[in-house]
Amino acid sequence: MTIENTIGNEVALSALEQGREIAAKLNPELETILAQRYDDALPGLAETLIESAYGRFYAREGLDLKTRQLATVAALTALGGQTAPQLRVNIEHALAAGAAEREILEVILQMAAYGGWPAAINGLNAALGLFAERTESSGASAWDGQ
Amino acid sequence: MTIENTIGNEVALSALEQGREIAAKLNPELETILAQRYDDALPGLAETLIESAYGRFYAREGLDLKTRQLATVAALTALGGQTAPQLRVNIEHALAAGAAEREILEVILQMAAYGGWPAAINGLNAALGLFAERTESSGASAWDGQ
Amino acid sequence: MTIENTIGNEVALSALEQGREIAAKLNPELETILAQRYDDALPGLAETLIESAYGRFYAREGLDLKTRQLATVAALTALGGQTAPQLRVNIEHALAAGAAEREILEVILQMAAYGGWPAAINGLNAALGLFAERTESSGASAWDGQ
Amino acid sequence: MTIENTIGNEVALSALEQGREIAAKLNPELETILAQRYDDALPGLAETLIESAYGRFYAREGLDLKTRQLATVAALTALGGQTAPQLRVNIEHALAAGAAEREILEVILQMAAYGGWPAAINGLNAALGLFAERTESSGASAWDGQ
Amino acid sequence: MTIENTIGNEVALSALEQGREIAAKLNPELETILAQRYDDALPGLAETLIESAYGRFYAREGLDLKTRQLATVAALTALGGQTAPQLRVNIEHALAAGAAEREILEVILQMAAYGGWPAAINGLNAALGLFAERTESSGASAWDGQ
Amino acid sequence: MTIENTIGNEVALSALEQGREIAAKLNPELETILAQRYDDALPGLAETLIESAYGRFYAREGLDLKTRQLATVAALTALGGQTAPQLRVNIEHALAAGAAEREILEVILQMAAYGGWPAAINGLNAALGLFAERTESSGASAWDGQ
Repeated sequence: MTIENTIGNEVALSALEQGREIAAKLNPELETILAQRYDDALPGLAETLIESAYGRFYAREGLDLKTRQLATVAALTALGGQTAPQLRVNIEHALAAGAAEREILEVILQMAAYGGWPAAINGLNAALGLFAERTESSGASAWDGQ
Repeated sequence: MTIENTIGNEVALSALEQGREIAAKLNPELETILAQRYDDALPGLAETLIESAYGRFYAREGLDLKTRQLATVAALTALGGQTAPQLRVNIEHALAAGAAEREILEVILQMAAYGGWPAAINGLNAALGLFAERTESSGASAWDGQ
Repeated sequence: MTIENTIGNEVALSALEQGREIAAKLNPELETILAQRYDDALPGLAETLIESAYGRFYAREGLDLKTRQLATVAALTALGGQTAPQLRVNIEHALAAGAAEREILEVILQMAAYGGWPAAINGLNAALGLFAERTESSGASAWDGQ
Repeated sequence: MTIENTIGNEVALSALEQGREIAAKLNPELETILAQRYDDALPGLAETLIESAYGRFYAREGLDLKTRQLATVAALTALGGQTAPQLRVNIEHALAAGAAEREILEVILQMAAYGGWPAAINGLNAALGLFAERTESSGASAWDGQ
Repeated sequence: MTIENTIGNEVALSALEQGREIAAKLNPELETILAQRYDDALPGLAETLIESAYGRFYAREGLDLKTRQLATVAALTALGGQTAPQLRVNIEHALAAGAAEREILEVILQMAAYGGWPAAINGLNAALGLFAERTESSGASAWDGQ
Repeated sequence: MTIENTIGNEVALSALEQGREIAAKLNPELETILAQRYDDALPGLAETLIESAYGRFYAREGLDLKTRQLATVAALTALGGQTAPQLRVNIEHALAAGAAEREILEVILQMAAYGGWPAAINGLNAALGLFAERTESSGASAWDGQ
């Protein structure tokens, strides 16, 4: 990355392009799904999310992608069931980034100490449900159920 | 804006530049303050925030800046005292965007129905404190106290 | 309004009556729906909500009704999916208060910066779902689905 | 109470008057403190809070005041440190309603299971701090520190 | 209880055993349900929850079980709809601990002042739904619907 | 660990002992600090926290301690400033578990996408403040400031 010593134009492009690279690893359909759902009503939303979340955070140096995804799973669990659809998506992304199912369950359970037992139980239900669905039909995506 | 019919490079540049334009209206020091505080430890943070929050949201068409800032004040109040420093900053930005002190207080009070009375009371205390400080010393910024 | 210079009795009456006036503009069925659902189990609930939320907040001077409703939509989005049924009701009220669909979507999207992307995405899904339902059957109310 | 079979005027008055009765038991200065702090900037706030929170909730039949106050202490603890000033006020009110210090500490500790350990620890710190201050100077009120 | 003057081994056992005693009063199936759902994927989860939540909090001296359960219902309501499944379970436990339906509804309504009206309305819907189901089929448990 | 094939007594002992082992790695003073602060008022609190949080979560197999601590830092950041004192403690624990300062900052920054920018900024301020204090006086603990 050349964030410090490039001109504004290139840096900003970089964020969007880097976001697309990361999103392609986690779910190659991500930008298309977002654009189909939202861009008629809110022009530019798909690009904004890919650039802001993936290009500006996940693509950064300093922490590996798998740990980043486990941290996101932890945070979404602690924030509570209100983020259940996104928790499912990010559990899929954590698997894509190399996390084991057990590692995902462990990080969710631990959240009982920080977000309370209801948050942990809801998170475990989401993960176990997703793992079961993936065993049954390997082509499905967590985005389908949102 | 030319978000729909430009190539990726130009759009992305646009987001950062548009963010800088908006930030300049709300607080001309914003990017400098952020860069001085965070960019040594986290390269690119100032640019990321200006681009993501201001360029990708506040700079959008479809809603005027003053209503956007009042909506932010409402949300930060409802989210609770944990966002007190940012509530102060955004109250300043709401004033810069043309909102009256009374409008800001009204939107905060109304949050008692959605975030609870403690959230509303904490928000009112933050706003009244800031209004008093501004009367006393007009050069200060809410960022100084963070 | 004569809140400052009337005796307690008249002021209190005013709050309930003013709440009914505002509620009538936003959804003429509101108090009846609330009373049918809750007043057997919790005597006085409908009146309490109309008086406290609408009479004591929305009926106040100092901020127009449309901005108040957009601020409520912002706050409910930022608070997260746990308030999805109320978000739908208040999106309907925002439309009734004169807000455009685009304005509502913009204020929801902006909440990605304060309540996180999951909150914004859930809010957009709620709004787009409601807009689609309204196009299909114009007589329905968001209260029906709660 | 005559909520069901009176005319609107009397019912509404009743809520405010009943709120004043309850507030007088918990902290005789409450309405005056609120009015002095907020009513210049937001006319009617003190009356609104007394009527809405105390008249419409605490004054209701169906649950005793002490249990109501312990439930409030539980909820404010679980909601987290953002409500620390209000937690202090309501711990004082719980004591005024007849709760023992130990009962208050127990209800706060239990919240570790629902709001997480940080919420419980912050709540315990608030309670122990308040108990210590009350031992040192019996005339002070939790409202003074807000 | 002999928490202060026993050795670590006996104390820890005590917490698990005491948790089982309390859980047996509230819902005799609780540990079995938890073990069947989670222990294959996360060994020891059922025991952990019984010990940590029931043995270490509900089994403590200093506050009666009914008030503890009402406090939990209050907190889960204020935390919002994200805890809806756990709110149902704890409303059942509150009934098992001797709370009246009206007391449960009152404590939920009161949360409008602390968690906002949406939290209170969602809580009331959960409670009224559960009460209706219990009238129709007395053998069912709130855990079935999770 | 022998959680699956031991009798209840030994398992429960294990949880407390394992909690003490983990706590000793992260902060050897932890149980003593907790006991001195809370055990007079709430007998058994220190043991409960060591057993429940450290023995039952951090001591589990299936995920390494460093990743567990980074996940906790992520969750506390996303939950917001209400958990600032605990965020400081867990940043210290993350360093003790082998995380680099940069990794901690990265995981906090990423939370802007899930808990909002205010949560991320508050978290960064807490981390940078703690890093600066540690450089100045290496013997201090984040627990001292609570």
